[in-house]
Amino acid sequence: MTETKKQVDTLISARWIAPVIPERTLLEHHTLVLHQHRIVDLLPDQQAILQYQAANHFELQDHLVIPGLVNTHGHAAMTLLRGYADDEPLMDWLHKHIWPIEAQFVNYDFVKDGASLAIAEMLRSGTTCFSDLYFFPDAVAHAAVEMGIRVQVCVPVVQFANAWAQSEEEHIHKGLAVHDDFRSSEFVHTCFGPHSPYVVSDAGLKRIMVLSEELDMPIQMHVHETREEVEEALATTGMRPLQRLHDLGLLSPRFQAVHLTQLSSEDIHLLAENSVHALHCPESNLKLASGFCPVGELLDAGINVALGTDGAASNNDLDMLGEMKTAALLAKTVHGNATTLDAWTTLKMATLDGARALGLEHRLGSLEIGKLADIAAIDMSDLESQPIYHPLSQLVYTRTGHKVSHVWINGELLLMDRQFTQIDQDRIIATTRDWQKKIAEK
Amino acid sequence: MTETKKQVDTLISARWIAPVIPERTLLEHHTLVLHQHRIVDLLPDQQAILQYQAANHFELQDHLVIPGLVNTHGHAAMTLLRGYADDEPLMDWLHKHIWPIEAQFVNYDFVKDGASLAIAEMLRSGTTCFSDLYFFPDAVAHAAVEMGIRVQVCVPVVQFANAWAQSEEEHIHKGLAVHDDFRSSEFVHTCFGPHSPYVVSDAGLKRIMVLSEELDMPIQMHVHETREEVEEALATTGMRPLQRLHDLGLLSPRFQAVHLTQLSSEDIHLLAENSVHALHCPESNLKLASGFCPVGELLDAGINVALGTDGAASNNDLDMLGEMKTAALLAKTVHGNATTLDAWTTLKMATLDGARALGLEHRLGSLEIGKLADIAAIDMSDLESQPIYHPLSQLVYTRTGHKVSHVWINGELLLMDRQFTQIDQDRIIATTRDWQKKIAEK
Repeated sequence: MTETKKQVDTLISARWIAPVIPERTLLEHHTLVLHQHRIVDLLPDQQAILQYQAANHFELQDHLVIPGLVNTHGHAAMTLLRGYADDEPLMDWLHKHIWPIEAQFVNYDFVKDGASLAIAEMLRSGTTCFSDLYFFPDAVAHAAVEMGIRVQVCVPVVQFANAWAQSEEEHIHKGLAVHDDFRSSEFVHTCFGPHSPYVVSDAGLKRIMVLSEELDMPIQMHVHETREEVEEALATTGMRPLQRLHDLGLLSPRFQAVHLTQLSSEDIHLLAENSVHALHCPESNLKLASGFCPVGELLDAGINVALGTDGAASNNDLDMLGEMKTAALLAKTVHGNATTLDAWTTLKMATLDGARALGLEHRLGSLEIGKLADIAAIDMSDLESQPIYHPLSQLVYTRTGHKVSHVWINGELLLMDRQFTQIDQDRIIATTRDWQKKIAEK
Repeated sequence: MTETKKQVDTLISARWIAPVIPERTLLEHHTLVLHQHRIVDLLPDQQAILQYQAANHFELQDHLVIPGLVNTHGHAAMTLLRGYADDEPLMDWLHKHIWPIEAQFVNYDFVKDGASLAIAEMLRSGTTCFSDLYFFPDAVAHAAVEMGIRVQVCVPVVQFANAWAQSEEEHIHKGLAVHDDFRSSEFVHTCFGPHSPYVVSDAGLKRIMVLSEELDMPIQMHVHETREEVEEALATTGMRPLQRLHDLGLLSPRFQAVHLTQLSSEDIHLLAENSVHALHCPESNLKLASGFCPVGELLDAGINVALGTDGAASNNDLDMLGEMKTAALLAKTVHGNATTLDAWTTLKMATLDGARALGLEHRLGSLEIGKLADIAAIDMSDLESQPIYHPLSQLVYTRTGHKVSHVWINGELLLMDRQFTQIDQDRIIATTRDWQKKIAEK
């Protein structure tokens, strides 16, 4: 008797697979079957071998396979300013260092080269989809397409003039052009990025709200990042920023609120009743002494919480697995409960809940049949991972970013045994050092 | 004209050296000269080549060289229980999981094998001296001597019976024997380890205080770790634990107080006026939802603060560089000041201030001429370290534990390009997996 095996692109057999959906499920000795960009099956190794014939078969005997990580907030180009002016008071950091440097150097090439460095770092630590908010969003989009990673580019909107645009109106106008240019891209999603409540006018926010509805584009914004922001808004507008945004009609399931370290119970109620997504960046909040996002309370209120690294200038790495450890540890003490943000919840926050925040949960974020094949594998054969009672504990509570061995996006292998298959890492390092030289000489 | 070069054991030439003393000093293209266990010179590369002839010359062109890290608090043997029962409420974790396992498995071999795994992990992340508090301290001391790492073994003192000793008195008695056995060791220092205020009697504490003075042995103790500890002490003794310890005469420059997440201003005053050392374990405190140690306030009060990872069962790694990042970030928000615990202060806390806490600051903790040659090198050639404006920012604010390339202790090379020179890593992993199997089958 002869059996006909189905011909597929790729088989990934792994010691452990955490598909995220079904929740809290750890599969052992299972195989993911990929074909034409998607996951087409997930079944025990022995059945997979009987049923499928693949061009490529990866046997990952010491590895945990997870959905690719979704980094929901950052400023990729600023990776070129990693550690440029640490340990300065925030206002000195911005006024004396970052803004003068940005005024002098930021252009299309700076953004594209910085984004390339950031994307390489993100890929090497398991991120397969990221969101970005910076000038020249088209440069980030082009870098992402060339390197094969998914991106949500937020088109920045601010009132002040800069190298990319001169007025609030011009930002929106140029942003719409970016949206049009990439509307048919598989890899690029566009989003409005009004920077923060204090740099966008009511008129600008209303216009963004209308366009967001018409074009079904999300809105991402830094909100309630610091105590000063809330106090100044109260002094100048008589309202807390979230109340103003609500009155303007911005709060909705399309709204992605970043940071949220200063929240009253009324604020949390506003977020919950409008199904706003909370994007939590714990390392940036800690480093800038901004405050604690009450993640446990947000989850208790039924709010979707996703995770982001923020930019490397204020973190200083783009390692989502490291961010997961920080988030999981910090939430416990902030919430006063050692069971808050357990390992499973943290993995979901960094994958499916991130996809949900970006409006992509039907395509990404879990290893379900029919979803796009965005996948990361972590090698747990090293001394520092032993012993392994529960691989999810190792994943979340030890440092694992540098153990990411393989990454696939859209079914394509981009990282194998920590080496890029297509990206020229030496060129990226050389270009980065050229920028460093120019900037340091300033 | 012929010059006679001085014959020495080892030269280490590095792109950057942060000697810690002089403070906030970064040397570029300098060479450390090692001879007979000690640092005998530190000078520019070109001068070093003219003056010294060495059996071994390491040229570390992309590396930052720092003093070996001092991990002031942990329970090495518990590395065998890494991740065994995460995400459980603290009392369930202890009563249902950790204590039953300890009761069944802890013996001399468990402790020595667990300590060997821990030591290997610590060496591979730049730690050259650690403190340990667990049953069978002699097993830890033997593992440290065999593997060539420095240790402060704290002899545990508790009232309850366990596999190592039956009574408070027997703990002290056996501890003194350990002290005698290792009194002439270059690598082992002994310390009293009364576990915590609630498991040692007043009589026991007084006896420890007297012996500590007579033998010049430090005392390490978990103190004010949780709110419940302080509340229960108030209910049962009418005093906060630190007040009781002070009344018993224990607080002194020989006293190492671990955790300190619950501190009133009177508590801080007591610590300061008695020159007590604070041992800060931020990741453990966060994970167990214990609270925040007010590091910024302690430093403002002139208290010496050192750093520890705590045990891998509650962290879950022993990576001091990771702990440094967590400590540096967390202290800023807890203190409400983005300049608290800057990169230089954090490095000093993890090296010289750690040595100071253990009473070893005259021998260890900085790269000064005359000090013991305990040294770590971090390779910063990777993509994730670029660009490098200030290597100290990379060291503290990005994840670097896995970039530790070389480690010397007592002038001896133990790690080279991340490979052990003497330790059998495969044997340690195999032994660990044997224990895992036994424990998981329970």
